[in-house]
Amino acid sequence: MKIKHVRVTPIAFRDAPLLNASGIHEPYALRSIIEVESDNGFVGLGESYGDAPVLSVLKAMKDSLVGLDPFDLNGLRARVKATVARIQPGSNSGAELAPGSHPSKQVANAYSAFEVAFLDLQARSLGMPLVDLLGGAVRNEVPFSAYLFLKYAEHVDSPYQPDRWGEGISPEQLVAQARKMIDENGFQSIKLKAGTLLGPEHEVACIKALKQAFPNAPLRIDPNGNWSLETAIRMAELMGDDLQYYEDPCPGLEGMAELHRRTGIPLATNMVVTDFDEFRRSVALNSVQIVLADHHYWGGLRDTQILSRMCETFDIGVSMHSNSHLGISLMAMTHVAAAVPNLSYACDTHYPWQEEDEEVIKGGKLPIRNGCVTITKAPGLGVELDYDQLGKLHDQYLAIDIRSRDDVRQMQKYRPDWKAVKPRF
Amino acid sequence: MKIKHVRVTPIAFRDAPLLNASGIHEPYALRSIIEVESDNGFVGLGESYGDAPVLSVLKAMKDSLVGLDPFDLNGLRARVKATVARIQPGSNSGAELAPGSHPSKQVANAYSAFEVAFLDLQARSLGMPLVDLLGGAVRNEVPFSAYLFLKYAEHVDSPYQPDRWGEGISPEQLVAQARKMIDENGFQSIKLKAGTLLGPEHEVACIKALKQAFPNAPLRIDPNGNWSLETAIRMAELMGDDLQYYEDPCPGLEGMAELHRRTGIPLATNMVVTDFDEFRRSVALNSVQIVLADHHYWGGLRDTQILSRMCETFDIGVSMHSNSHLGISLMAMTHVAAAVPNLSYACDTHYPWQEEDEEVIKGGKLPIRNGCVTITKAPGLGVELDYDQLGKLHDQYLAIDIRSRDDVRQMQKYRPDWKAVKPRF
Repeated sequence: MKIKHVRVTPIAFRDAPLLNASGIHEPYALRSIIEVESDNGFVGLGESYGDAPVLSVLKAMKDSLVGLDPFDLNGLRARVKATVARIQPGSNSGAELAPGSHPSKQVANAYSAFEVAFLDLQARSLGMPLVDLLGGAVRNEVPFSAYLFLKYAEHVDSPYQPDRWGEGISPEQLVAQARKMIDENGFQSIKLKAGTLLGPEHEVACIKALKQAFPNAPLRIDPNGNWSLETAIRMAELMGDDLQYYEDPCPGLEGMAELHRRTGIPLATNMVVTDFDEFRRSVALNSVQIVLADHHYWGGLRDTQILSRMCETFDIGVSMHSNSHLGISLMAMTHVAAAVPNLSYACDTHYPWQEEDEEVIKGGKLPIRNGCVTITKAPGLGVELDYDQLGKLHDQYLAIDIRSRDDVRQMQKYRPDWKAVKPRF
Repeated sequence: MKIKHVRVTPIAFRDAPLLNASGIHEPYALRSIIEVESDNGFVGLGESYGDAPVLSVLKAMKDSLVGLDPFDLNGLRARVKATVARIQPGSNSGAELAPGSHPSKQVANAYSAFEVAFLDLQARSLGMPLVDLLGGAVRNEVPFSAYLFLKYAEHVDSPYQPDRWGEGISPEQLVAQARKMIDENGFQSIKLKAGTLLGPEHEVACIKALKQAFPNAPLRIDPNGNWSLETAIRMAELMGDDLQYYEDPCPGLEGMAELHRRTGIPLATNMVVTDFDEFRRSVALNSVQIVLADHHYWGGLRDTQILSRMCETFDIGVSMHSNSHLGISLMAMTHVAAAVPNLSYACDTHYPWQEEDEEVIKGGKLPIRNGCVTITKAPGLGVELDYDQLGKLHDQYLAIDIRSRDDVRQMQKYRPDWKAVKPRF
């Protein structure tokens, strides 16, 4: 079996005005949809970042993959390295909250994007679910958490109709957001994105309200490194007992290590441990107790399995990080999570925020029931591309002028004096 | 595809009177040959230890695997754990030099034995070389080293005709042994098993003679932890510059760490880092700079890949350890080594010591050319069982009274006062 065609299609889909440490989500999120077609008629799917620097590598890769055996992952890695060495995409905008889009991660994230498509192609050609290639499912239902955001009711300049979630600023509004998301999806645990311009005290008040409303749901808060060590310690004193874990409250491996020494609270990260080198440094410092894996920048599904085994070896918990994504990414996360015995916590996903009419896979959005996504016996990832939808979302990409995610620039539309500062509090 | 039959056949083959830290090899080495047959007619092969404690687990596993999908490695691991929890094989004889045969390693080594057979079965059913399932070959020729032993001309009580290697006691005899092994196999590097009753000074004299005879061949010495820290330091002063690495000169993670601190010589091991827990402790202490992987006790081929990636992460070199083995193990080592990008050194193998008439695979012994074993395009491991040979070697197993390797007991036949002491020097 050889690869005959590779297609990389950038798409854009509506994204809610979600507040975060950098500023606020732009009205459209970018992704790339990868199709790898074999000479015997199978097509493997992948989904990755759609930002210009990533996209330029993915597109530059295409021709070099023709003729490669889709089982030859070492060959894929060699070709990605050669391509990245040849081209030098420059910008690192958008990288702050999506570590995989940083230039230093070009090899890992381009490899990851194609690795998933290669594995999907392998599994489809064998007529088996992808998880079976990863060693088989230890669970068929993978738990995710309710991922709450502080948010405005609609985007600046009203580019389209407001989303169905409404404003999420007050603690009461956050509780209502959680209730709706849990009612619809059955989530058992709750994560609050924090580090926003509303400030730590407000966000802690939201956690307190959530704790009161959902006393049995494990709670997490994620300020995205936007609190100083001192602020993170002060907030830990206010809510430490309420948290299942404390995700990236303050910046840096050293800061996180010091925070853990001083509070004892389990710290999770998708910011200070984003590659194997940082993993090694974190082990030396005891910076984090939970790594939030993300196959989009850790090197695909197999490297996520390796990371998980490393976490087991070093007594570190494992769960999963998410950026705004569609169903291909969701199923890739689900297949690898199903094969990781030591998955310690429900995974993150932005999926509930995605609009019903903008899924790129046939049949529309995937169901989340009892907080879980279910693995089926369908071959590969178990999803098929809807080419009408792909065309529509690609046209939308062509129609907008966003080419790299920039939540700072977007916030400047609301507040002209807004700057990229970290930690802000 | 489901598993229909599992066969585990213990065999014995002639083994030369090779001296080591425990004493001396017995006249026969034990192995088990594993066959896993699927309902669609494919047979996956494995080879592991043949000692009684290991064999009892492998045999107890058999029925539990029937009906399992050979892709379900997580299911295999769960069944191994359940079986080991159910039975309690007691003896740990033979474990000193073959870490995988220790009771604490029962899960890892039984899993490993079947994992290789499962992967071989997967690859055969797909019509592809096993290495392709492991991510593809980064090299088709895997380098091995000349593995020299101090040895007697024949076994005590002459159980059969002396081997063709003759006595290997004096430095001159060792150089002749190396010359013959290199002439026949083209090895580029040389390893000397040390720690024998002949003492460190004699073994260092052998290294010096080898260095003079083969000035361009990287040299290694392996006293199997039989030298004290002080002796290891003293010998390092005599031959440090002659060595590519210094393998397990003294016992323990702490001892090795102290030795490296005091000499700076790169230390390799198959004794103090034999599982992921010891890997973690070694990283904390900086005990070793090279891990000699062995899929027979590290958890099979995929876990060997994970170990290799961990070594890359922590800037530790990778090569491979060997016990006395036949061609199935050699090809399993070769396939995984072919898929490990960061294989840093030529692998160890006892294969040249194996007699021509006692290979268990069709076509007899595999060729080693230019020091390398070559991966072919044949499906799976690329070797087929010779059932006549399997029957002959199984009959030989039934005819002898060795059931667990015991090199101490064997040495007592030469020296009645010989005792298990470590470090001896």
